[in-house]
Amino acid sequence: MSAADPTRLSINQMTVRQLSLPELTGACARLGVTGVGLWREPVRLYGVEAAAKLVRDAGLAVTTLCRGGFFTTAPDLDDNRAAIDEAAALGTDTLVLVSGGLPPGGRDLGAARERIADALAELAPYAAERGVRLAIEPLHPMYAADRCAVSTLDQALALAERFPASQVGVVVDTYHVWWDDRAPAAVARAGAQGRLHSFQVADWTTPLPEGVLNGRGQLGDGCVDLRSWRERVDAAGYAGPVEVELFNDALWARDGAEVLEETVRRYAEHVL
Amino acid sequence: MSAADPTRLSINQMTVRQLSLPELTGACARLGVTGVGLWREPVRLYGVEAAAKLVRDAGLAVTTLCRGGFFTTAPDLDDNRAAIDEAAALGTDTLVLVSGGLPPGGRDLGAARERIADALAELAPYAAERGVRLAIEPLHPMYAADRCAVSTLDQALALAERFPASQVGVVVDTYHVWWDDRAPAAVARAGAQGRLHSFQVADWTTPLPEGVLNGRGQLGDGCVDLRSWRERVDAAGYAGPVEVELFNDALWARDGAEVLEETVRRYAEHVL
Repeated sequence: MSAADPTRLSINQMTVRQLSLPELTGACARLGVTGVGLWREPVRLYGVEAAAKLVRDAGLAVTTLCRGGFFTTAPDLDDNRAAIDEAAALGTDTLVLVSGGLPPGGRDLGAARERIADALAELAPYAAERGVRLAIEPLHPMYAADRCAVSTLDQALALAERFPASQVGVVVDTYHVWWDDRAPAAVARAGAQGRLHSFQVADWTTPLPEGVLNGRGQLGDGCVDLRSWRERVDAAGYAGPVEVELFNDALWARDGAEVLEETVRRYAEHVL
Repeated sequence: MSAADPTRLSINQMTVRQLSLPELTGACARLGVTGVGLWREPVRLYGVEAAAKLVRDAGLAVTTLCRGGFFTTAPDLDDNRAAIDEAAALGTDTLVLVSGGLPPGGRDLGAARERIADALAELAPYAAERGVRLAIEPLHPMYAADRCAVSTLDQALALAERFPASQVGVVVDTYHVWWDDRAPAAVARAGAQGRLHSFQVADWTTPLPEGVLNGRGQLGDGCVDLRSWRERVDAAGYAGPVEVELFNDALWARDGAEVLEETVRRYAEHVL
């Protein structure tokens, strides 16, 4: 295999959201990328079954579906069951959860995490029956209030550990955990438990944009030691895909196929 | 004492940076506020000795001077010694440190923290001779790359513990630590060690502004349980001032005296 071997690389759809699903799958196949991470909204617009066939026919695996969650404010369990069904239909075993932040007027992150645990208890068996694992993604602490009360890998694991590893695990996304000196030990623990369900990479660049959602840096543009994190998850026994998930206004403004090619190069340079 | 007793309240100068030093000290004295936190730049513009006299004549204590630090990129130890001298001249025993982020091209936060430790070793004895304690402020992890490689109270304490408690301690600022489920235990440890050198309050509001510097919320506007944090530092043996430090473009655009009065009210409602 060449130094730029992309066979472990998965491209999350949001990284090049300017591409349609057929454009995305076509470009991935041409570049030798073997997996894609998908999002519910564009998949539903295209049609779940049609998307499943499109990806399958392109020889691609669906590495994750984003996302279920938002359990802390009037959780919509029916919608989460629909997300699980969609994951199963797409042939992925991993539904990524963005768990939800504080409810309106709320100030208790611990209580919010208990609501997340309650929702997991409802959903995990349903998911397991369909071959889908729920993967809790700890989000950077800057999202604790409004998006995800689970801010560290330790917290995500503490929630996951209440359930069988085959049902509930965690996502390790470098953008969210790179700063955390306790995360390496948590990665090892997650791996040993078989709960390391997904590994995503993005770089950290500053200044952060307003709202702090769409400033995830292209691989190599920031200060995250991406290769060390990849080696760390590998050392923890992870052998799954490396999924690149960038939300970045500047990347979205460019030609999607060009961004995709750049991402494959950057993956080889900074992660592989 | 009334329910709105402000005798423990200190107003950090940046909260109402639209006020001149004489306006600030006059307004604080009128409102019964007994302390101010000062910043080097406006103090030097006014003159250090003149500022010291102004504050003293108004019957106010200087609770902290902000700031020394930025130790990770070509640290300027002479400038930090000057900051220590200024703290001593102003009669405060606490110099707040913003320790610095990653050096250009750097990706190793642990190495950055070691450079911070090196600088502390140089400066702490010098400060102690002048009656000044160095107070490491852990900054929210969203500042890890570009402002402060010390992201948690645990990390700040791990650095401080290499030195005598009379020389190096920590700042607990609710804005930076509110999300951290390990911070309460660290507060207790810091208190037991006599290293809880300053307690600052600000609320967390979203969405965060571009650059994430000037979105610190007025007390009560956000989701931080400020009273619980005040009770927590008190339970740890802290009996010092409660310093309100807000950087907020919307507050800076308003009449400073009005913001100051509002802050005293909010302190009584949400912290006291």
